[in-house]
Amino acid sequence: MPSTVVSVSTATLLLVLDLLGIAVFAASGALTGVQKQLDIFGVVFLAGATGLGGGFIRDALIGATPAAALGDWRYLAVPAAVGVVGFRIHPTIARLARPLVVLDAAGLGLFAVAGARKALDAGIAAVGACAIGLVTAIGGGIIRDVLVREIPVVLHREIYATAALIGTFVVVVADRLGVPDTLTAVVAIAVTFVIRVVSKWRRWSAPVAARRDD
Amino acid sequence: MPSTVVSVSTATLLLVLDLLGIAVFAASGALTGVQKQLDIFGVVFLAGATGLGGGFIRDALIGATPAAALGDWRYLAVPAAVGVVGFRIHPTIARLARPLVVLDAAGLGLFAVAGARKALDAGIAAVGACAIGLVTAIGGGIIRDVLVREIPVVLHREIYATAALIGTFVVVVADRLGVPDTLTAVVAIAVTFVIRVVSKWRRWSAPVAARRDD
Amino acid sequence: MPSTVVSVSTATLLLVLDLLGIAVFAASGALTGVQKQLDIFGVVFLAGATGLGGGFIRDALIGATPAAALGDWRYLAVPAAVGVVGFRIHPTIARLARPLVVLDAAGLGLFAVAGARKALDAGIAAVGACAIGLVTAIGGGIIRDVLVREIPVVLHREIYATAALIGTFVVVVADRLGVPDTLTAVVAIAVTFVIRVVSKWRRWSAPVAARRDD
Repeated sequence: MPSTVVSVSTATLLLVLDLLGIAVFAASGALTGVQKQLDIFGVVFLAGATGLGGGFIRDALIGATPAAALGDWRYLAVPAAVGVVGFRIHPTIARLARPLVVLDAAGLGLFAVAGARKALDAGIAAVGACAIGLVTAIGGGIIRDVLVREIPVVLHREIYATAALIGTFVVVVADRLGVPDTLTAVVAIAVTFVIRVVSKWRRWSAPVAARRDD
Repeated sequence: MPSTVVSVSTATLLLVLDLLGIAVFAASGALTGVQKQLDIFGVVFLAGATGLGGGFIRDALIGATPAAALGDWRYLAVPAAVGVVGFRIHPTIARLARPLVVLDAAGLGLFAVAGARKALDAGIAAVGACAIGLVTAIGGGIIRDVLVREIPVVLHREIYATAALIGTFVVVVADRLGVPDTLTAVVAIAVTFVIRVVSKWRRWSAPVAARRDD
Repeated sequence: MPSTVVSVSTATLLLVLDLLGIAVFAASGALTGVQKQLDIFGVVFLAGATGLGGGFIRDALIGATPAAALGDWRYLAVPAAVGVVGFRIHPTIARLARPLVVLDAAGLGLFAVAGARKALDAGIAAVGACAIGLVTAIGGGIIRDVLVREIPVVLHREIYATAALIGTFVVVVADRLGVPDTLTAVVAIAVTFVIRVVSKWRRWSAPVAARRDD
């Protein structure tokens, strides 16, 4: 009985975290859409593609179909609502840039860890699970940028994907060591979150190759 | 016996409609390819990606693999033929802009409705089925525009995706009410078609967020 | 016994060829990433997407999931290593342009043939198998170019996709005629390779539609 209660609570918590992550990513999609002067449909679509795209790629690659987000209306309603609201109040959202960075870092950790976990549960080995976790975390943002004709920001600025990748390493190493799932998830999300927030705050960035004209 | 006859006829009708929809979308891809000065292979490839891309995304997301279009050579031959012909007679096609809008509206309705139907048949719930119908209808055009480095026209101009989405609403509501499939399909395609054609004719467009410089 | 030995050797040979093809494609992704001033993560990611993207699309469309590359760490380690090395020694790689064209032609043939073969083995008919072989061969390069905001080079320059497509024709025709798999593969890869290298050397290109201003 207690275990059922706990399990229900954990499932609820995970659902809430998952929806929160989707909402934050969707908000970045909605803002981008407004900036690019998309119409309201375009803004909502971009919110949805940014919030759900990473998970869709994950599910198509590991064969977890129909994709998870298609089976629960809340996964579709949340980014749609964020898109509509974002279309109306975008100056307010834009002013929230700093809190959004923090929420986005949480979403990044959550998506990376949940993606790696889901891949391990589908029987995929460690390296593949890291790749899937990474794609889950950054796939939505890449789709967002490609759709508005930008080189994906994750490929050329800041420490972002690296933070996600380190989070997935924590998951697969802890899984190998037999650490309980919940503890692993909390630590891995925290690691990703901290690396991302600190790197943003200290303005760290990854090296770029020198252009040598030879 | 009669039911078999009817069923064969319906299947044939659906196949013809499906191929017609693919052909129209492929024609828009071929025209775009010519305008962007792609070579003949690029024009044919863009025709194929535009005509089949929405269905490919649909099938990968709902897990209906191998993707339907791979199992019937006509689904691949039609866009390839449209691409080759379009490469040769593109000024003629371009002059047919108005009839193409009408055919494209029919293709839009057909793809949206067929996509939603296929999703429902795969056991996906109502909201997910609308999302799949939408992606089936607009996915090919989005791929077309991304491949030639344009922001997808569906995201920032005209009433297009909205018409498709309303068509999918009709499908899932009618399905809930127990309306026969064929009647539902006819009505839903007609609704999408009329909204699209009228909105094009009256030059309706969806709102764009005001840029406030604050 | 002997057949097991042969089969192991063949499997090893195929693995080595496959990894070599991935490495060559990954090198083109890494070079592109350096040219576009991506950071080191972006360079590695682009190497991976270019080397593995075609196979990922193939596996998602034919339903061979989890995607093959996720199940073997070498498939992920090779493009990652190429990306890191490419980031460091890119002027050297750029100077190797001519040998890279030759290796890339080999990779093109290998991917086209392996993709068509895998599709046939999954029960997909001839035309569909050609389409899958083509997408396997050119999908990675298309993803590479889209991610850095270029119109995919394969769509508007040189004889590249056509060479791959002809290789897939050889596979499906030989399969219909009952030619042994290994012989078919060798011939089909050679045909693709020769067409590609000769067309590059003779500077052949596919026709582009004349722009008529009428």
